[in-house]
Amino acid sequence: MVQYRLVYFNLRGRGEPVRWVLTAADQQFEDVRYNKETEWPFKKQEMPYGKVPVLFVDDKPLCQSVAICRYLGHAHGMVVEDPWEVALGDEVADAVHDLLPLAAQIVYAKVANDTEKAKMLATEFYTSTLPPVMRELDRRLEGKEWFCGKKMTWVDVFTACYLSQLSAHHEGSLEAVPNLKALVDKVVKLPQIEKWIKERPDTPM
Amino acid sequence: MVQYRLVYFNLRGRGEPVRWVLTAADQQFEDVRYNKETEWPFKKQEMPYGKVPVLFVDDKPLCQSVAICRYLGHAHGMVVEDPWEVALGDEVADAVHDLLPLAAQIVYAKVANDTEKAKMLATEFYTSTLPPVMRELDRRLEGKEWFCGKKMTWVDVFTACYLSQLSAHHEGSLEAVPNLKALVDKVVKLPQIEKWIKERPDTPM
Repeated sequence: MVQYRLVYFNLRGRGEPVRWVLTAADQQFEDVRYNKETEWPFKKQEMPYGKVPVLFVDDKPLCQSVAICRYLGHAHGMVVEDPWEVALGDEVADAVHDLLPLAAQIVYAKVANDTEKAKMLATEFYTSTLPPVMRELDRRLEGKEWFCGKKMTWVDVFTACYLSQLSAHHEGSLEAVPNLKALVDKVVKLPQIEKWIKERPDTPM
Repeated sequence: MVQYRLVYFNLRGRGEPVRWVLTAADQQFEDVRYNKETEWPFKKQEMPYGKVPVLFVDDKPLCQSVAICRYLGHAHGMVVEDPWEVALGDEVADAVHDLLPLAAQIVYAKVANDTEKAKMLATEFYTSTLPPVMRELDRRLEGKEWFCGKKMTWVDVFTACYLSQLSAHHEGSLEAVPNLKALVDKVVKLPQIEKWIKERPDTPM
């Protein structure tokens, strides 16, 4: 059996979609969480690009969260065959992933106690940046249960992981996009994901 | 025969790796370049996420440059079979792609005539950000000709496209990474890529 060890900080962040895909695939994994202040300065140099998350697959490192989730999808049958459907799935994952640096800026401003900047960035994000992406994702799901073909893939889990968190910071933002909301709800209510959310370490982001 | 139409600005930017992969795959494509001031405001709303590049494949849109290049790689045999090699290739492409927003900030500062900021950002980028990524990519290529398995894939073309441009702004940055330099040189000297570089529109970035 393959041994998975995910290395990240004690945060959800870019590690969480990897944890969700592993969980959705019913895979055990060691969930290593480095303390940013005390451990990371020493561990950083051991990571291929000096960054985390890194997934160790039988001790072989794989970096980049989207690449990791895609690999796990392929390893555990959470993919479809049709190349065009696969490409549209990759597109969705990258479109969602593009939102992260912008969402992170809001968090950084809050951490720095710059309330005004955080408020300005949040308004921009939740009125201008996020809605067109959500509308497009909703359109993709018209008449469909999942993003790629007729089964749940890693793209659905990846998207639901981020959008459930982003929408939690802005009440009702999923209400305007019913197809997308249905998809997020379905993933969040998978028994193993529900259990993970309940039992995972409680972290600020 | 498939009809390809790439829609982007009159820039290399995120459109150029798509053009290179199409060119390396000996595919004809319509290279549509919108004027940012006069055409884009009207065309923006026609694009799925309001962004370019978009590749139209027989009029069906595919967004996100990395997803587009991966799709083209699969469509034209520029991929390998082994799932782990595929994952490491995806990792490389995303690691290179991560550099773009940081490199773009230098360009934006230059365009805004903020010479001091541009210089500061360039120093940071070329001494702290780029070298560890290049060293890791060089290490990946030890004893190997290409990133994935034993053949040229879309990942090699994608990487060579960006790194040949980034290193052009900073003399000698490829000299310290001989395996990576050899790969970039091989891609740049493919007859069809050489021809493309010679004949492509001359743009500032």
